[in-house]
Amino acid sequence: MIKTVRFHELGAPEVLRLDDLPRPEPGPGEVRIAVEAIGLNRVESMYRRGEFGAPALPSTLGYEAAGTVDAVGEGVTGFHPGDRVATLPGLDMAQYGTCGEAILYPASMLVKVPDEQSMVEAAATWMQYLTAYALVYAGNIARGDHVVITAASSSVGLAAIQIANAAGAIPIAVTRGRGKAAALLENGAAHVIVSDEENVAEAVRGITDGQGARIVFDAVGGQPLAELVTAVAPRGILILYGALAGEEVTLALQAVMFHCITLRGYAAYELFLDPAVQQSAIDYIYAGLKSGALRPLVDSTFPLAEIVAAYRHLESNTQFGKIVVTAG
Amino acid sequence: MIKTVRFHELGAPEVLRLDDLPRPEPGPGEVRIAVEAIGLNRVESMYRRGEFGAPALPSTLGYEAAGTVDAVGEGVTGFHPGDRVATLPGLDMAQYGTCGEAILYPASMLVKVPDEQSMVEAAATWMQYLTAYALVYAGNIARGDHVVITAASSSVGLAAIQIANAAGAIPIAVTRGRGKAAALLENGAAHVIVSDEENVAEAVRGITDGQGARIVFDAVGGQPLAELVTAVAPRGILILYGALAGEEVTLALQAVMFHCITLRGYAAYELFLDPAVQQSAIDYIYAGLKSGALRPLVDSTFPLAEIVAAYRHLESNTQFGKIVVTAG
Repeated sequence: MIKTVRFHELGAPEVLRLDDLPRPEPGPGEVRIAVEAIGLNRVESMYRRGEFGAPALPSTLGYEAAGTVDAVGEGVTGFHPGDRVATLPGLDMAQYGTCGEAILYPASMLVKVPDEQSMVEAAATWMQYLTAYALVYAGNIARGDHVVITAASSSVGLAAIQIANAAGAIPIAVTRGRGKAAALLENGAAHVIVSDEENVAEAVRGITDGQGARIVFDAVGGQPLAELVTAVAPRGILILYGALAGEEVTLALQAVMFHCITLRGYAAYELFLDPAVQQSAIDYIYAGLKSGALRPLVDSTFPLAEIVAAYRHLESNTQFGKIVVTAG
Repeated sequence: MIKTVRFHELGAPEVLRLDDLPRPEPGPGEVRIAVEAIGLNRVESMYRRGEFGAPALPSTLGYEAAGTVDAVGEGVTGFHPGDRVATLPGLDMAQYGTCGEAILYPASMLVKVPDEQSMVEAAATWMQYLTAYALVYAGNIARGDHVVITAASSSVGLAAIQIANAAGAIPIAVTRGRGKAAALLENGAAHVIVSDEENVAEAVRGITDGQGARIVFDAVGGQPLAELVTAVAPRGILILYGALAGEEVTLALQAVMFHCITLRGYAAYELFLDPAVQQSAIDYIYAGLKSGALRPLVDSTFPLAEIVAAYRHLESNTQFGKIVVTAG
């Protein structure tokens, strides 16, 4: 029997249980992984609360894990027992949840973990960099671009700062409170805007000589988006990948039109719809890890037995970087 | 002295006057044109009413004219007296309004009128095709794409239908009333949706087997945009170039994010920011005129003395295609 994290009712982190389930057998195209590290993501909390899809109960959860292959199903090529692997995110969490001691995952959605990388770092790599890769894929980020990054101290925010710096762009980090400002500057932000104290759009215009930012990378959505749009430079792009502040915005269209602004929804899964795009994204991340341009920042680790505390910490908004749960 | 259309107060078409002014002399880089035909655009009505910028009074107006060069200013190369030319739109109408018997225009914003084309057609070409060229430039339109076109019986709407057909795409025309449906089908629409009678998004999903349209090309904006977004296929694009229904929309962000939808403001002037892009757009339009894929549709012509009636007709929404005023 193996421990698998499931919830039998919707709600706060306390609904999570460590259920004893039989070790699963891989079907065709699937790989079984002895999990060593699990990366936590905010969308899992939304899922568990019933705010993202409607899970059939009980449900597994989790998008990210790293571990060792210990069995492969029929037709799997390219992966063998003993391989160090990590999951690509975006699959149905009820079918392929990653929170557990042993999980099944489609081989097509696995990547090898580089020898130099620890399992904890590997579990803190793929969701954040594939999400922040939007700057490259959707934003065509280039040297000298100003890039506004909201929720900057999240794992994705920090990944975006690194990708912006790697491109020779100028990352402008937006964070709610003053508390994380110094750490953001230490971790690559060229500027920090504290949204509890400053008008974000005005601050961006100040930093950019009134031009606005070529790219805004936003996790917040909701009504703040309307103001954020006014911080985008003419012909610039606002990439929206989260809606922490809500699903609805009342937007003035005049500025969008006359400044030829693009507002683009993004989810990492779209990279996987085209194998060539998927491979480009993976190659970009491998190269960044190797060069040191990309360095996953781990806030803290929790053992699997403390999964409730780990998600409580995630929902506290006090972390800086990725929260990882260790197993095995 | 020459007749120049100006307004001395903001308001309805009746504020327009035919003022007698001295024939203007071209400055450096400018060309003087003996105007033969003027294309009318809705944005001029907004400008005259004070709903688009704040004109210093009295103001000229107009974006489109075709005529014959009769003088060139210092430093002008490539244009000579006798050349048949048309204006590219987007300049300040107070400085370079096109409504008059003789106008000045920067040589850099003129194109030659092909020998085969009449002046009336030339005045009905550049604004509409450069605007609808958004399908190519911003939409990367391709064979088989479903393209929803609102305000389909406008000159830009009809131009978009032609560009969609030229690309092998499937134009879905949206029109308010049943009255123009048959004419839209005759003019290239593969499908017509009558928005007074049908839910547009549902109708689009019906036509596209539930997928939505890869491109929505919208002149309407306002709250209808929120529903229109739900008619965009995953990873599709809504190109907004007008806001006839208002400047504000309350939008649900969830669909934008999870379907990776792009909402893009567009104005033809952005093509002119890059000479290579400008030339590509012009070449595309010349080629389309030559092949017959692009055929400007003229609703009616009015003599310059009837400029008030011409704009009244524009604002009646009863026209089908371009309204052109003839001069000279």
